[in-house]
Amino acid sequence: MGIHKYFRSLNELERIIRCPGKFKFEEHSVAAHSWKVVQYAKTLADIEEKHGAQIDWKKLYNITSSHDYGEIFIGDIKTPVKHSSMQLRQLIQQVEEGMVNHFIEEHIPQEFKGTFYHQLREGKDDSLEGLILEVADKMDQVYEAFAELQRGNTEKEFVVMYRNALIKIKHIKLRSVDYFLEEILPDMVNEETLSSINIRQITEEALAL
Amino acid sequence: MGIHKYFRSLNELERIIRCPGKFKFEEHSVAAHSWKVVQYAKTLADIEEKHGAQIDWKKLYNITSSHDYGEIFIGDIKTPVKHSSMQLRQLIQQVEEGMVNHFIEEHIPQEFKGTFYHQLREGKDDSLEGLILEVADKMDQVYEAFAELQRGNTEKEFVVMYRNALIKIKHIKLRSVDYFLEEILPDMVNEETLSSINIRQITEEALAL
Amino acid sequence: MGIHKYFRSLNELERIIRCPGKFKFEEHSVAAHSWKVVQYAKTLADIEEKHGAQIDWKKLYNITSSHDYGEIFIGDIKTPVKHSSMQLRQLIQQVEEGMVNHFIEEHIPQEFKGTFYHQLREGKDDSLEGLILEVADKMDQVYEAFAELQRGNTEKEFVVMYRNALIKIKHIKLRSVDYFLEEILPDMVNEETLSSINIRQITEEALAL
Amino acid sequence: MGIHKYFRSLNELERIIRCPGKFKFEEHSVAAHSWKVVQYAKTLADIEEKHGAQIDWKKLYNITSSHDYGEIFIGDIKTPVKHSSMQLRQLIQQVEEGMVNHFIEEHIPQEFKGTFYHQLREGKDDSLEGLILEVADKMDQVYEAFAELQRGNTEKEFVVMYRNALIKIKHIKLRSVDYFLEEILPDMVNEETLSSINIRQITEEALAL
Amino acid sequence: MGIHKYFRSLNELERIIRCPGKFKFEEHSVAAHSWKVVQYAKTLADIEEKHGAQIDWKKLYNITSSHDYGEIFIGDIKTPVKHSSMQLRQLIQQVEEGMVNHFIEEHIPQEFKGTFYHQLREGKDDSLEGLILEVADKMDQVYEAFAELQRGNTEKEFVVMYRNALIKIKHIKLRSVDYFLEEILPDMVNEETLSSINIRQITEEALAL
Amino acid sequence: MGIHKYFRSLNELERIIRCPGKFKFEEHSVAAHSWKVVQYAKTLADIEEKHGAQIDWKKLYNITSSHDYGEIFIGDIKTPVKHSSMQLRQLIQQVEEGMVNHFIEEHIPQEFKGTFYHQLREGKDDSLEGLILEVADKMDQVYEAFAELQRGNTEKEFVVMYRNALIKIKHIKLRSVDYFLEEILPDMVNEETLSSINIRQITEEALAL
Repeated sequence: MGIHKYFRSLNELERIIRCPGKFKFEEHSVAAHSWKVVQYAKTLADIEEKHGAQIDWKKLYNITSSHDYGEIFIGDIKTPVKHSSMQLRQLIQQVEEGMVNHFIEEHIPQEFKGTFYHQLREGKDDSLEGLILEVADKMDQVYEAFAELQRGNTEKEFVVMYRNALIKIKHIKLRSVDYFLEEILPDMVNEETLSSINIRQITEEALAL
Repeated sequence: MGIHKYFRSLNELERIIRCPGKFKFEEHSVAAHSWKVVQYAKTLADIEEKHGAQIDWKKLYNITSSHDYGEIFIGDIKTPVKHSSMQLRQLIQQVEEGMVNHFIEEHIPQEFKGTFYHQLREGKDDSLEGLILEVADKMDQVYEAFAELQRGNTEKEFVVMYRNALIKIKHIKLRSVDYFLEEILPDMVNEETLSSINIRQITEEALAL
Repeated sequence: MGIHKYFRSLNELERIIRCPGKFKFEEHSVAAHSWKVVQYAKTLADIEEKHGAQIDWKKLYNITSSHDYGEIFIGDIKTPVKHSSMQLRQLIQQVEEGMVNHFIEEHIPQEFKGTFYHQLREGKDDSLEGLILEVADKMDQVYEAFAELQRGNTEKEFVVMYRNALIKIKHIKLRSVDYFLEEILPDMVNEETLSSINIRQITEEALAL
Repeated sequence: MGIHKYFRSLNELERIIRCPGKFKFEEHSVAAHSWKVVQYAKTLADIEEKHGAQIDWKKLYNITSSHDYGEIFIGDIKTPVKHSSMQLRQLIQQVEEGMVNHFIEEHIPQEFKGTFYHQLREGKDDSLEGLILEVADKMDQVYEAFAELQRGNTEKEFVVMYRNALIKIKHIKLRSVDYFLEEILPDMVNEETLSSINIRQITEEALAL
Repeated sequence: MGIHKYFRSLNELERIIRCPGKFKFEEHSVAAHSWKVVQYAKTLADIEEKHGAQIDWKKLYNITSSHDYGEIFIGDIKTPVKHSSMQLRQLIQQVEEGMVNHFIEEHIPQEFKGTFYHQLREGKDDSLEGLILEVADKMDQVYEAFAELQRGNTEKEFVVMYRNALIKIKHIKLRSVDYFLEEILPDMVNEETLSSINIRQITEEALAL
Repeated sequence: MGIHKYFRSLNELERIIRCPGKFKFEEHSVAAHSWKVVQYAKTLADIEEKHGAQIDWKKLYNITSSHDYGEIFIGDIKTPVKHSSMQLRQLIQQVEEGMVNHFIEEHIPQEFKGTFYHQLREGKDDSLEGLILEVADKMDQVYEAFAELQRGNTEKEFVVMYRNALIKIKHIKLRSVDYFLEEILPDMVNEETLSSINIRQITEEALAL
């Protein structure tokens, strides 16, 4: 019972793997992914601040730290499924919220329920912090897909994963996104790769959209 | 393209883990689970035959061999989610069917489409073979949960998994189910266990329902 | 005791790896392999039926479902060893049969001993079902070897494994084998590969024999 | 080059294991540990805020997000070694700082060097945020050790790890620490355990010091 | 070609697991086992020397360092199989020798063939060094089995493995064996254990034989 | 207590990984590495003997068998750190010796303390055996790095690891080193590789230094 129950549950996300079955060279746990998202988000926020933006750091910490906690309840539902129909997507989101809320109701002491509702809600919205989270989440998708492609995984889904994440990032109008696309991404594309897949070409096509 | 695409995809189910994050002592891939279900189903069918039932072996082979193939598309959606609402359950099932059908449309040569529609459909129905599949699937849940409990995993969900599977099995009126409950299950309950959980008691309570 | 003992033992085959030490990119358990063989066999049988053959589905199910169960007793004895001398091969087979029989004698209830003798016997014979099992078993060898080669494993043994399996398959005169060689295999050869090994060439040479 | 180099390096911490060789039941990567520390720190900070403290969330985010990044350079040096002599401890810390600084000098663009110096410095100091980080880091040690003990690991080092972490936490005078000791820890102690080790007794002794 | 081929092959023994399928808590590679045998053998030899025996250290090094190298060729053939019939056991040994010799013939330069024949031969004979190797090999079996039992594995085979190894050790009349039984083994028996199995009792029974 | 404690501890080195985080294709435990070093050292010593050198086999066995045992205490401290300053390197070595001695004092019976002090000391010195150990240790670094490069790992550190090990080996003036460089290494360079890295070139450059 209590917050202890929440802390104990974090361990599960060390054992839940993203995109099960797909990664051939290295799998990534939700815990590791979450940590990397916290990293990217911080750097993105730092870049925004450098350009004069005002970051609500408390909010950022709030929404990035546990952004995939819900996967403890709903598991890893593959993206194509989540997006196969708006109806299904909303229903899954409702169920996830319901389960998170139920967990909070059952285990979190009264005086912290509000804190946890805030922390475990879906943080991707139109605020600067929400957009940063969205970009950070997609950036990890780029890095994960790139690592597979670079090591020689020729499966189409990683090209798709890589490309779709780039396209999503590109459409979020932020200074930090510009920086990522102009300064960080080129270094990735310049990495040596075993793949016969032309990562440079895919990147350019995605960014042209 | 072609059936080759189907054969290549089987490898993914070797890497998709059941109930990700939950199993502490040993994880089970969908491929291994599927194989065990084929095993249990055969024995259940043999028992039914011994009692004078007529088994359509072709149908049984058909529905047991690829019964979880759909998880390649929808991933492992946790049971509590699938059953959280009838509406969601149906929607997920629709999506899964749609994706399976789409795969078959795209990859399976015309002359075998029918065969694959049959093979990859949901096989649990009210026929004897369909019920056998249902029991076999639940039996593996019993065995998986038992193995965790017996090794000392005290998490409530395994008690729940064990019990719910037994209850489901019990409600399927088959001679082979009687045999399982009267001859096979007692041997399981008599195994030595590290657990402080009283497996015997849980078993008896479940079967009393 | 009892059939429970058999069911509990299936878990071991989840942990026994094929060709231990050889696979660099991905290992395969005997359980996963067995499941894939059940898959291939079904499709081969479907193809045969389409060409007017009569399939004894009960027999097929019987011999494919537990075809490598004996590895629980004898472990994974490398092919070069098994085939190093006819005498050794026969002796190992005798020992395996003896151990399987001993297991059945000791654990399987009287009324099912016959069933299990049938189920756990060596199923590869000259019947259509026996040949299908032989082909299915070799097909998995092709797929396993191909996966390693395609990911860049340049070890000679995978070329040998790939080739020998193809040669064995080719010599089994079945319509489904023709289909495999003419319709399915080309798709494999056309897959992109990292390997400097000319898989196309190896394939053509093997099939020319 | 560039921040890309930093982002790419995060993947390594997914593969660096804490206390290598010691954990028998489950190993934890530095990445997963880091993520959990971010979690605990947030809750501790929330508790502090509830008691009227002022949290510099930007600072907290800063020091918790990459607090063990240095392990990429120095590896996992066992605690007994680090603390074997003050001289060695200081020297190791100097070396780590030197390597982190060198990395930043070499790879981070000029305009972000300052940000990264801040982010990758040692964050444990006497500020409220620094103490929260210290507590959060030790809390994960408690949770990691408890998980091993609870699953039956009787090795003395886990008792030591558990106890030392509790003692360290106890000596940090914070409201959130009181909350942890009074509200959260008891739930842990009340969990069922396989161990013959009296966790309750160890806990009480540690807290009495 | 050449000794390089031999050196490269050592890596395989890092991936070949002993008793595949049986170990539940921790598997052991042949490489790790081989290293531990080198360790035990040294200590046993040191004890013998202390009692005035003359150790041919070159011979000891020779026979302990690569004592299981043959498993690269024959794989891990389970003990019950190897011992099921004297005829089979001899045949397997012949095959193994044949394959080792073939490897040496094919790859080892002429001037070192003799060295490798010596190194890769079966070292267990009646010499003091040969007996030490036999004891060391069995000691690892004791340690491996004990580790599983101590962690709660209740499978009969580990009791059998533990006991048989002890009995074999006991029947080898060496001072170092006496030391092991009188000074080292009691410390093992005194370790805390989760098992309901009475290790002390099993030990005493085995030693009474 | 006693030598049992030492034997039990060997298991930890099966779980301590070399260069954690760096190896992408295959990790190596300290136990496996130790065993391979014993192998290489034997062959190097055989070569020396062939050239008329006198090998103290007891000493060789002594210093090669447990040469990395200290890693149980100090963990795997990355080379760049160990060599970052002579002062740190000496301090770490002092600490390691201290911990090894402490272990021996605490656990090894009086009559064997001397033996263990000899066995667990740093064996690399200017004696022929000490140099052989040095070469053998570096050879494994060559093989480990080569395996990663050959499989396509393009990370600079493996080029550095490969090259530095070769340079170190080259500077040790031994007949067996000449043999390694002239007869064994060329076979490695001639192996097929996926890497775009020119291993031949790197090798030639390293040996030219």
